[in-house]
Amino acid sequence: MKYNNLGKAGIKVSEISLGSWLTFGNQLDTEGVKQTMRTAYEHGINFFDNAEAYANGLSESLMGMAIKEYRREDLVISTKIFWGGKGPNDLGVSRKHLLEGIWNSLKRLQLDYVDLIFCHRPDPTTPIEETVFAMDYIIRNGLALYWGTSEWSAKQLEEAYTIADKRNLIPPSMEQPQYNMFVREKVEKEFLPLYQKYGLGLTTFSPLASGLLTGKYNEGIPENSRLAKFKGLKDDLEKDGLLSSKNIEKVKRLSKIANDLGATMAQLAIAWILKNPHVSTVIIGASRPEQVIENVKATEVKDKLTEDVMLEIENILDNKPL
Amino acid sequence: MKYNNLGKAGIKVSEISLGSWLTFGNQLDTEGVKQTMRTAYEHGINFFDNAEAYANGLSESLMGMAIKEYRREDLVISTKIFWGGKGPNDLGVSRKHLLEGIWNSLKRLQLDYVDLIFCHRPDPTTPIEETVFAMDYIIRNGLALYWGTSEWSAKQLEEAYTIADKRNLIPPSMEQPQYNMFVREKVEKEFLPLYQKYGLGLTTFSPLASGLLTGKYNEGIPENSRLAKFKGLKDDLEKDGLLSSKNIEKVKRLSKIANDLGATMAQLAIAWILKNPHVSTVIIGASRPEQVIENVKATEVKDKLTEDVMLEIENILDNKPL
Amino acid sequence: MKYNNLGKAGIKVSEISLGSWLTFGNQLDTEGVKQTMRTAYEHGINFFDNAEAYANGLSESLMGMAIKEYRREDLVISTKIFWGGKGPNDLGVSRKHLLEGIWNSLKRLQLDYVDLIFCHRPDPTTPIEETVFAMDYIIRNGLALYWGTSEWSAKQLEEAYTIADKRNLIPPSMEQPQYNMFVREKVEKEFLPLYQKYGLGLTTFSPLASGLLTGKYNEGIPENSRLAKFKGLKDDLEKDGLLSSKNIEKVKRLSKIANDLGATMAQLAIAWILKNPHVSTVIIGASRPEQVIENVKATEVKDKLTEDVMLEIENILDNKPL
Amino acid sequence: MKYNNLGKAGIKVSEISLGSWLTFGNQLDTEGVKQTMRTAYEHGINFFDNAEAYANGLSESLMGMAIKEYRREDLVISTKIFWGGKGPNDLGVSRKHLLEGIWNSLKRLQLDYVDLIFCHRPDPTTPIEETVFAMDYIIRNGLALYWGTSEWSAKQLEEAYTIADKRNLIPPSMEQPQYNMFVREKVEKEFLPLYQKYGLGLTTFSPLASGLLTGKYNEGIPENSRLAKFKGLKDDLEKDGLLSSKNIEKVKRLSKIANDLGATMAQLAIAWILKNPHVSTVIIGASRPEQVIENVKATEVKDKLTEDVMLEIENILDNKPL
Repeated sequence: MKYNNLGKAGIKVSEISLGSWLTFGNQLDTEGVKQTMRTAYEHGINFFDNAEAYANGLSESLMGMAIKEYRREDLVISTKIFWGGKGPNDLGVSRKHLLEGIWNSLKRLQLDYVDLIFCHRPDPTTPIEETVFAMDYIIRNGLALYWGTSEWSAKQLEEAYTIADKRNLIPPSMEQPQYNMFVREKVEKEFLPLYQKYGLGLTTFSPLASGLLTGKYNEGIPENSRLAKFKGLKDDLEKDGLLSSKNIEKVKRLSKIANDLGATMAQLAIAWILKNPHVSTVIIGASRPEQVIENVKATEVKDKLTEDVMLEIENILDNKPL
Repeated sequence: MKYNNLGKAGIKVSEISLGSWLTFGNQLDTEGVKQTMRTAYEHGINFFDNAEAYANGLSESLMGMAIKEYRREDLVISTKIFWGGKGPNDLGVSRKHLLEGIWNSLKRLQLDYVDLIFCHRPDPTTPIEETVFAMDYIIRNGLALYWGTSEWSAKQLEEAYTIADKRNLIPPSMEQPQYNMFVREKVEKEFLPLYQKYGLGLTTFSPLASGLLTGKYNEGIPENSRLAKFKGLKDDLEKDGLLSSKNIEKVKRLSKIANDLGATMAQLAIAWILKNPHVSTVIIGASRPEQVIENVKATEVKDKLTEDVMLEIENILDNKPL
Repeated sequence: MKYNNLGKAGIKVSEISLGSWLTFGNQLDTEGVKQTMRTAYEHGINFFDNAEAYANGLSESLMGMAIKEYRREDLVISTKIFWGGKGPNDLGVSRKHLLEGIWNSLKRLQLDYVDLIFCHRPDPTTPIEETVFAMDYIIRNGLALYWGTSEWSAKQLEEAYTIADKRNLIPPSMEQPQYNMFVREKVEKEFLPLYQKYGLGLTTFSPLASGLLTGKYNEGIPENSRLAKFKGLKDDLEKDGLLSSKNIEKVKRLSKIANDLGATMAQLAIAWILKNPHVSTVIIGASRPEQVIENVKATEVKDKLTEDVMLEIENILDNKPL
Repeated sequence: MKYNNLGKAGIKVSEISLGSWLTFGNQLDTEGVKQTMRTAYEHGINFFDNAEAYANGLSESLMGMAIKEYRREDLVISTKIFWGGKGPNDLGVSRKHLLEGIWNSLKRLQLDYVDLIFCHRPDPTTPIEETVFAMDYIIRNGLALYWGTSEWSAKQLEEAYTIADKRNLIPPSMEQPQYNMFVREKVEKEFLPLYQKYGLGLTTFSPLASGLLTGKYNEGIPENSRLAKFKGLKDDLEKDGLLSSKNIEKVKRLSKIANDLGATMAQLAIAWILKNPHVSTVIIGASRPEQVIENVKATEVKDKLTEDVMLEIENILDNKPL
């Protein structure tokens, strides 16, 4: 396993990391979480991603129990604050919710600090200045070590950097966008000016486009798949036009390449992301230890992705942002 | 109930909120406070206003007991510091009194932090810079989330904003002025430049002009009314010339409009304030659960205040600041 | 008793205050300290001055015991850091000694914070920038509310203000110089530009020039006087040329004025200082309750110091700094 | 013993100090550490140098036990953070490792704060801005009093100073370079512009070039010498070309000078460093109390190093950086 800086930040994250979204507290109980994390850790994963919203906090509670077995310094633990409940102040990244949110997350995680804290979404009802001040507060009070955003626009990030620079506050270190073979605009185009200028790091999610890039929907959606279970996921995919026959056709063609390389389609899809030097880590959403093991092997597949193979993939995808 | 941002700040307050001034610890005992707050909460009120000066701290102690039944994140609790006792350093917003004041308020409220802390008045004996530094300290130490002022002038607020900007300190978020049909100068004229420029929010008090706008003094001051009980209130009203026969005449004419809309005079008076987009929340001073319920219904009356009705009211009031 | 701002700072100090130098732990034991402070407090004194160096910390321990009887908010307690022991790092106002010094002082005083902390002297071995950063740290950590200096030059203070302004640090609020009828240069000339420009406040010590201005040395030094007991005091007076026959002659002439006003010489000397608007408080060093009472009456004598009387005094003193 | 400022910083360190590298936890057990430190302390040494890396933390644990016998204010204790373990985030001076490192070091040392914290090496994988922000955090949270670097280049230090100045952060106070008769470039040339401009202090290590300057390798490497025990040391010396016959020849000639002055070769080597006004303290690595005593006497030898003797030494060394 390779460990990358988070953008220019000094902290190191494994190039493949384990997310808890949809799995911890949904598909996985206490024992399942422990086993999946243990497998991930033993295969070199050090970054475990979480959020207050995942399973309404249960995901953090389960991770909190599981990480007691580890040396704190060996782990990079994150949370994301935005959806903390149903009250008027449980939503967004106001100073009130950021602070109340992180205080509650740390209790569930049974930690003194997380390594990474994210604004889980942009919040049009809170000035970015308030958020940057609050994040600086959170770090200076030792509740988190680095802060970042998720699904923010380049413009919003620019504003955050400008304010941090003007006010001598700690700037963001990372963004968590969706990124995979079918969703490329933000990472490959919109964010381009930010990598060099600010050293922005990326912790990307949904590497398999909710399973689409495993090839398992090539012949329709199986009954016990995650897509069948979480209606919202499917709605999202359809809304974004990802579940098109054109895309499924592409997956079929990509599967052949994977096969030629002795890899699964999922491994190829992850390895393809690993080739992007702006990606610090790819968050996988494995629900079983075996899945972790399979996904981690993508790091080996990466070495097989020569320039020629990458070109062949590009030709199939035919969606490079201009 | 609608929840508004506090000016541009990310925190959300119910458009009607419950104050404890003159009621908690005076007209209301422990049980009365609990019932009134419960009724308010159940009707959507999330902001409960307080001050160290109210009933000499007893108002905070009573609220402190009452809020134990709630989830902290669901509440927006304020206090105001200025009158903390009889000693030379118990008055004003020096660093000494602001810190000693908030430490004591938090003990009475049994809280780790309030959401909002106000300078209860301008303090000509303390440089505004000292106050802004101290408020920044209070927020950075987690004793409060947002700070503001009460009954400050636009000029004083401008100075506070300028210092905060220069020193990279956290700026004020809100002002608490008196505002009602008969007291309009500050909110509608003096503060106008501040709303856009700094995103100043307003938590207005005395919506009924100490009862005058309920119509209950139309035929003289009843014996057990708040005005009869608190001599200072009546003195204030008289000093400001509010208890004039001209004003009582206006109330009589406004009462007819209220009646036509199927509303009480108090509801009309509150609804009229709610129409002002610069007002984040109207603090009511209910002393009984039924009063809370009556006042909250002003949110419905607001929808009936068409442009025509507003014009009719303006014609009666005939006091629009130019 | 009048309460003055400390320069422009918002904190209020009684115009006469009680010092512990040479008395607490030397002339006064636990009971004596308690009685003297009680008398002072009952006559309106709220500021009690101390230093880590006084009686090697015993003065702070005694005051710490005595102030348990009071409401903390009613007191203004100071300490001064500079001479903390015999080790290489016990001297001066380095960050190391300032922090270790205040931590130890607070333990002896049994307090969470002092109101005022002074650099007891300038420290040529420590950059003023380090001292200003450390003082800002001390205030932002809640260990003290205001900071100042003692016996610094105007140039050193200017540098401190400049650094605080540049770095957005909390500036000094007060200086503690010697000031009396015979020592006038610093307060009346050197510091003049600082009062207006920075709002510097003064807590002056040695109002009676170590007893010289009581008139009790008019006929030589009595055996049980403080001057006889503390050899250093006498050396200082002689070094500064204060114990001259010329000065004693002046005291004799001033005593007549005092007598004409129905005041003691000491009261006249203190009242004369109170007339200076730049002096926030005059620290007296009473060793008996009766002395406190006598000194406090200087506030009444002050009202008798008409322009004519002041001119008469000036003519006798004949030492106005130009 | 003379006590020097650490560059311009106000803290005072004995001109000779005791390091724990290679000795504490290796050659010295609990009792040995206590005795060596006691001897050092009794001979005027107040600065005891340590690092998380020394004996994998055992050196800190041993020092932590030994210093319980002393008054905290009498000691200057350091640690250095860089090598904290084997995990991806245990290396370097990222915010994560600096904070986790100092938290762990303080536990082992059983202290609330160290006096000095060093970045044990430059870390090309962490932006210097992140390190400066983290060091400022560490000092403002009371975990250390001063921060510095070890084996950084002048260019890296310049960048740290520039960032601290721009962001109003606490700048570094000291560097810990290797410095002795055979390793002079950094201290005598590269750092020259920094002493005046920033007041950089030096705590130099390896005064005897790993024993070479004791003369004990003049006839080959004895079996139980430190060089024989720690292979890395010998490798380093050889890599740097220090163990050359030319150098051994120089040591032989220098030994004669030492002899003429009634000093040992080691004393001469240390005294020669003490003559450099930019050196705040020379860290010795004594493994026995007698060695401490011998080394400390270098302070007396220093007085014998007249201009003539220094010239004679320079002629022998013939390695002055130009």
